[in-house]
Parts: sequence; C-alpha cells; structure tokens
Amino acid sequence: MDQYIKVPHQITDKSFEIISDEIKELDPTFQFQTPLQEDIIKRAIHTSADFDYLKNLVFTGKAEILIQEVIKQGGHIITDTNMALAGINKKILDQYGCHYHCFVNDERAFKISKEKGITRSMAAIQLASQLEGPKVYVIGNAPTAIYQILESVEAGKFEIEAVIGVPVGFVGAAESKKALHESEIPSIAALGRKGGSNVAAAIVNAIQYNIKGIIHQH
Amino acid sequence: MDQYIKVPHQITDKSFEIISDEIKELDPTFQFQTPLQEDIIKRAIHTSADFDYLKNLVFTGKAEILIQEVIKQGGHIITDTNMALAGINKKILDQYGCHYHCFVNDERAFKISKEKGITRSMAAIQLASQLEGPKVYVIGNAPTAIYQILESVEAGKFEIEAVIGVPVGFVGAAESKKALHESEIPSIAALGRKGGSNVAAAIVNAIQYNIKGIIHQH
Repeated sequence: MDQYIKVPHQITDKSFEIISDEIKELDPTFQFQTPLQEDIIKRAIHTSADFDYLKNLVFTGKAEILIQEVIKQGGHIITDTNMALAGINKKILDQYGCHYHCFVNDERAFKISKEKGITRSMAAIQLASQLEGPKVYVIGNAPTAIYQILESVEAGKFEIEAVIGVPVGFVGAAESKKALHESEIPSIAALGRKGGSNVAAAIVNAIQYNIKGIIHQH
Repeated sequence: MDQYIKVPHQITDKSFEIISDEIKELDPTFQFQTPLQEDIIKRAIHTSADFDYLKNLVFTGKAEILIQEVIKQGGHIITDTNMALAGINKKILDQYGCHYHCFVNDERAFKISKEKGITRSMAAIQLASQLEGPKVYVIGNAPTAIYQILESVEAGKFEIEAVIGVPVGFVGAAESKKALHESEIPSIAALGRKGGSNVAAAIVNAIQYNIKGIIHQH
C-alpha cells in the first residue's frame, strides 16, 4: 500500500501513455484527424475509462478551433448542469477573462419552465442566449437543451459559436446528438447513448489545455 | 423535432424501463441481491449508459444501509471532487439536516499537501476526518484518497461508517478499489478501471431516493 504513486503529474502522464498504447492495440490503423482532436478523444477516454469514445466522438465545422477562439476572446461557456461546470478547470479560462455559467437552478429558469411548459434545461438555454458576446454551449445531460439550441438557431433567434453535445441517456439523447451533428452548427458530439457531464467537462478541459500546449493538467 | 419528450419524469421512467429490459436481455439469470442494490446499479447505468456497472459494482458490510442511516442521522457526506458534490441531489439531504463537503480546494488542503508531500486529495481526507459525527466518504476520482482512508483506518485514527469508492482511471484506480473491497470497511466499489464523479454522485442519489421510496427523482 505504500507503493502507490502520490504525484498527480506522474499519474496523468502514465495514464495517457496507457491510453495511447491500448488505442494502438485496439485499432492499429486508427488515425486522429488533428492533434487537438487526439487530445479531446484521449481525455474523454481518460475521464471514463471507456474506449468507445475513440469512435463515437465526432467533429464538425472545426468546433474545437472555434471554441479555442471563444476562450481566447474571453467569451461565455454555458453548461447545462452544475456537475459539468464543476468539472471544468477554471485556471486558464480565468487567465483569458472567460465567463462560465449554468442557469438550470436560476430562479428565472424555474419560472420560464413553468410558464412555457418546457424543461428547466430549455429555459436555461433561453436565459443564456441573452448574454452578450461569443458563446459556447456545453451539454452533458439534457437532450432538450440540444433541441432548444437547434430550434432557436433555426428560428434565427440565436447567436452561437459552437456546441459540445454529449448528453448521456436512453431516451432522446442519441437522437438529439444525431440532429446536432447533422445541423449547420459547429459541434463536437458523442454519437449513441454515451456521454455525460464528466465527458462534457473533459472535452472543455482538453481544448483549453491544448491552447497552452499542455496535454496534462490538474 | 417537435416530437421529443419534454417532461423529465416521463424521460426517467422510460429510461429505467429500457435499462430493466436490456439487463434481462444481457443476462436473463441476473439476480439483484436487494431492491436497494438494484436501484444503485440501475442508476449507475443510467448516468453512464454503460452496462458494465451491472457486474463491476460490489457491496460489502451493508454499506448502502449504513449510508441511509448516516443520512437519516444528519451526518456528513464527504466527496473527493467538486464535480461529485455538484452531482449529488441536496433536497433530501437537506430535509435530514445532512452536511456535505469537498475539501480538495480548501486552503488547508494545499498547505498540508505541500508540507507532507501528499496529494491534495489525501490532505482533504485528513481534514474531513476532523468533522464530528457519522461520516460517509464518496470517492469518484482519487485512488490516493482511498489509500488515505485505508491507512488511517488501519492506524486507528479514523471514524468512518462507509465508503463509496469508484475512482476512474488507468493508474492505481483498480488497485485502490480492490484494496477497499477487501478491507473491513463497509463499501460500495466499482471493480476495474471504470467509475467517476458522475457514478459516485449517482450512487449517493440512488441511496437517498430509496429512503423516500422513490426510484426516480430530479
């Protein structure tokens, strides 16, 4: 028991080494499209120990580059759950003067949800749309939040740079992510059922660490 | 796009129905030991869309019952990450006057970590041990937190009711959970690499919802 590694940096380095080795074993022909996509996919695997993310994470419209731009411009990161928000490392975001929000427990979200007969996740997206400046939406839980974004963009009511769409679930999650992936909105989506607030946060973290040229960060 | 379900209660009910059906397909002979363990395992699957939790979640010392007692007594729930803490539903815990904490970003944890050459997760566990009253530790990320608990209990320095030990990872996570599972401490552990803050929170939520006789809660 005294032999376990107590240095977080070493643990993370070793973990990414194991992940790289196992990807090579699983699929020797697998090619990452870009180093940034590689960072994102490996960090999703790191946070879940689930190699399904090697195949189910899909990228459109250079979303990951656009998200880096939003961060560098000190824009807004909006999550659908407090869990995703809690999992996002704030250090680099703070350096760039970014803003980060989750409106799901905002009193106004309760009110709008009740008045309009929609989910609080949808109401929270409507609230976030009022923010000034470039915006990235990070959805790890609520398919209805994805649909709200798609509907609002379609109706021309919405300014948005990119969406990380990785809600987990058995009802509506896969459909919502497919619809996002097939839309015009630049996105990173986890096709199928899998995803979650942890994966959502991991993707944001991989993207911001990459700006600083670091793969590993605590 | 207008056809998606917007009522959270219906979404959750339908999800648990699908999970139950697929468990029957995957392993028609699978038997849950108790209804509470069934709630816990199904909610771990619900939060991850990963049926591996059907087999890798293991229980010792009636930990899940002891955790319900701690909640009913208004005891302490201590998590290793803010993400796990954010994912725990506070409504029922508040009704019972429970306390919930995460000390990993506490200034004292930084100080102890530096002074003793240990991880902040270990320092945070040391800080939590000073709390008065029954305690449950909920570890979704840090194997070192598990080892700190095991070492302190072995040294007789520690009062503890039960541990939820589900750190995810490639280095030390599986070993730490095996050691916890084989210890005298009542525990719920996810054997192997998988787990995470989301799974940790889901287990706490399943346990508290079960007290109220509800499987589904938002």
